[in-house]
Amino acid sequence: MSRTAAALVVGDEVLSGKIHDSNSHDLAKFLRSLGVELRRIVTVPDVVESIAEELNALSTRFDLVFTSGGVGPTHDDVTIDAIAFALGRTTLRHPALERALREHFAERCTDDHLRMATVVEGTELCYGEGDPAPWPALKLGSIFILPGVPQLFRAHLELLRPVLSGAERAFVVESVLCSADEARLKPLIDRVVAGYPDVGIGSYPRFRDGDEGYTVRITFDARDPAQVRAARDTFASSLPPEWLLRVEP
Amino acid sequence: MSRTAAALVVGDEVLSGKIHDSNSHDLAKFLRSLGVELRRIVTVPDVVESIAEELNALSTRFDLVFTSGGVGPTHDDVTIDAIAFALGRTTLRHPALERALREHFAERCTDDHLRMATVVEGTELCYGEGDPAPWPALKLGSIFILPGVPQLFRAHLELLRPVLSGAERAFVVESVLCSADEARLKPLIDRVVAGYPDVGIGSYPRFRDGDEGYTVRITFDARDPAQVRAARDTFASSLPPEWLLRVEP
Repeated sequence: MSRTAAALVVGDEVLSGKIHDSNSHDLAKFLRSLGVELRRIVTVPDVVESIAEELNALSTRFDLVFTSGGVGPTHDDVTIDAIAFALGRTTLRHPALERALREHFAERCTDDHLRMATVVEGTELCYGEGDPAPWPALKLGSIFILPGVPQLFRAHLELLRPVLSGAERAFVVESVLCSADEARLKPLIDRVVAGYPDVGIGSYPRFRDGDEGYTVRITFDARDPAQVRAARDTFASSLPPEWLLRVEP
Repeated sequence: MSRTAAALVVGDEVLSGKIHDSNSHDLAKFLRSLGVELRRIVTVPDVVESIAEELNALSTRFDLVFTSGGVGPTHDDVTIDAIAFALGRTTLRHPALERALREHFAERCTDDHLRMATVVEGTELCYGEGDPAPWPALKLGSIFILPGVPQLFRAHLELLRPVLSGAERAFVVESVLCSADEARLKPLIDRVVAGYPDVGIGSYPRFRDGDEGYTVRITFDARDPAQVRAARDTFASSLPPEWLLRVEP
């Protein structure tokens, strides 16, 4: 059985359009490389009750949940409190995180810095492999608590790779790019969909500026590269040559 | 009372990391300009039951729901069927859409093209103001059904502007950019948070490459520009001068 996952993006800044969230996209690509299926992305405001409610709903339904954002020291950073509330647990100041903060900030260290050492009871620290990371990623059972700053989010995903690596094979995707309108391609697409039930097949039109026509990308997704290649090639060879732009990769 | 909204992004291509969704970000900015509060963004796979379930949950809780994607002619376009299933309604071929498709595709028009004329019973067509749009946006009560192609998504938002314009004032946001770590700013932020309860205040650290320090953006959001300006200026003048980089806009 392959594991399923959900992303919970905590961010008034995303909902208000100030920030275009990229963390869920980075998570999607990361999980694909592990062979884990991302099934939901939910973005919520910086409100304890909303975060807790969505977290509980996602944890019940999916094997892994990744939160993004709301873990800094300021008033709008409420993710840790929300997770504690959702799980009915307490929070505590983690000794290893407190030590790291005191070392980093030295004589400038205040209680507000130490707020960043607050974790939910039971949280494990994940430092990755190789050189020890300056700041660990947080794991609480099947919940992974990541920072919102994109560079840190990506770094923490890599710290989690060892604990997340499982038995699944990574997904492979290949594409056929077509120049024909999507509806005319449909009968040919339907044929390959019927012939390759284990391959996920998607059809994505793209409008070109200053052009009457479409370009449609047909994608072929599965864990078995041979199946992906076979579906892709079967479809490509079924196309009238003038509709076939190119095959990728 | 101001209206609340949710986005329902339908897309295997987003969950699999092939596409970085921009439609929810465009929707967020659009709704801000109308003064409508976006409260959730939910991304689901191209699966009728999943779409229907999330749609029902969002419709119950928020005043307006915007779907993105899944409205083309191919096998993976299941949004219309999912909305019909969610609402317990039938689908039908809309005469005006059928006419538009037959005119556009002329003798090349097939039943697969006409699939794009399928709507849920009760759907209204929104052509916007000014020159008639070649293809309308779809409105079904408080549900707005938009295409996934980003250029079309943005164009359809504009078609919906007249029916969505309400009594709310648009949101205004201004910022103060600081060079100090977030925890040291916290006491000053807390003071302005307490002093301006009607202004939403956010704190967003940004890591600079090759630099030990942070830049933190403090944002001030509200419908009343005078309140936003007052909160912003109160905060900026409370900063030690060496922490103040600049005020925006």
